[in-house]
Amino acid sequence: MLAVVIDLVAFDGDDTLWHNESIFSMTQERFRELMQPYVGDRDLDERLFATEMRNLRLFGYGVKAFTLSMIETAIELSDARVTAEEIAAIIHAGRSMLEHPVELLEGAEEAIERVSERHPVMLITKGDLFDQESKLARSGLGDRFDAVEIVAEKDERAYRRILDRRGVAPESFVMIGNSARSDIQPTLALGAYAVHVPYPLTWAHEQIDETELQTHGRYRRIDSLADLPVTLTSL
Amino acid sequence: MLAVVIDLVAFDGDDTLWHNESIFSMTQERFRELMQPYVGDRDLDERLFATEMRNLRLFGYGVKAFTLSMIETAIELSDARVTAEEIAAIIHAGRSMLEHPVELLEGAEEAIERVSERHPVMLITKGDLFDQESKLARSGLGDRFDAVEIVAEKDERAYRRILDRRGVAPESFVMIGNSARSDIQPTLALGAYAVHVPYPLTWAHEQIDETELQTHGRYRRIDSLADLPVTLTSL
Repeated sequence: MLAVVIDLVAFDGDDTLWHNESIFSMTQERFRELMQPYVGDRDLDERLFATEMRNLRLFGYGVKAFTLSMIETAIELSDARVTAEEIAAIIHAGRSMLEHPVELLEGAEEAIERVSERHPVMLITKGDLFDQESKLARSGLGDRFDAVEIVAEKDERAYRRILDRRGVAPESFVMIGNSARSDIQPTLALGAYAVHVPYPLTWAHEQIDETELQTHGRYRRIDSLADLPVTLTSL
Repeated sequence: MLAVVIDLVAFDGDDTLWHNESIFSMTQERFRELMQPYVGDRDLDERLFATEMRNLRLFGYGVKAFTLSMIETAIELSDARVTAEEIAAIIHAGRSMLEHPVELLEGAEEAIERVSERHPVMLITKGDLFDQESKLARSGLGDRFDAVEIVAEKDERAYRRILDRRGVAPESFVMIGNSARSDIQPTLALGAYAVHVPYPLTWAHEQIDETELQTHGRYRRIDSLADLPVTLTSL
């Protein structure tokens, strides 16, 4: 059996290195409280998600897009009865997300350090450029990466462009992340290795059928970043 | 006199290659109409700008940030009397900006083509990643550039990083743009050449005292991109 040569290891940011979905989830809980008087027996989460999906093509990902979608949902669900104070509270909730401290996942810092002893390490994260740069700076991990790419969408094309630009062959590339849709599926499709580290919460948009991925020859799954170094040595 | 060797020529996007500030200005006009009943003798533009500046650190640039700032200003100025319908109209105005056709400035396409016959050409634009990528795609100019960088802020550090990554010396780099603050000042400071193509409208935030820049030895000013090729050959 030939040994695998790894030329580049990339980490996802949100919910792989630092908590993210838990902050969205907390805000959505606050949104639910605010909207309680208007919601009745309708499913607020479902309506908000529908608004987000409708807006995705125009707004992209991130907190500002989420905040605008919350406001739109509030206006629609309340038949325009929602008050300016309540909308101000929604904006305040969005602002709080952007100001929220960046909390690293357990073992994140050590994992990057261990991996970077043997391989070039990179951060590939998607979403709002300004917010992601700010999170990276606040995470204290900024200097740990040999390169950082913030992309609007993590699809096969985006990964291919990143690898091409660096002259890295897919079969020498390993992507590590929590999202089957954004981190695992496109990189496996490209011919790279993918290490899946699931996060307890997954945004509905990121949920895909993982059955096929999990039987893929270059798919690995770990419960914690602490298991990463040993996984990489046994690819 | 030694000839100047140019290794890289970069264009700004907004208001250099395609119209942008005119769309913001049009939306602000619509916002002014909407807010008329609440404004009285207060200066709406000034209040909106103050909100934008307060939010810049958290929201960054772009349409989504602008839309959220309009909503906040509307709530504050109206003492929370603004209606949900009016807020929906503000969001609608923001959405229209994102859907607005990308209109190239006269001579933009030809200028890129002419320059690219002799030098590698690049796009360096700031703002919202998703929105900028979408504008670039809709501009039809996507394939014309050898490289594209979308940055959160166009300061000396950002330009230095871009040049370092490509191994380009500042004195072999030319930046072309409409903004004295974002395109001209930082690149001159870095030791590069800067070609200023003013746009009829300038956002207050981008306005700086240009007196010193204009006497700089590596500063050039042209009225139209049509003058660019000849300017580059006579640096």
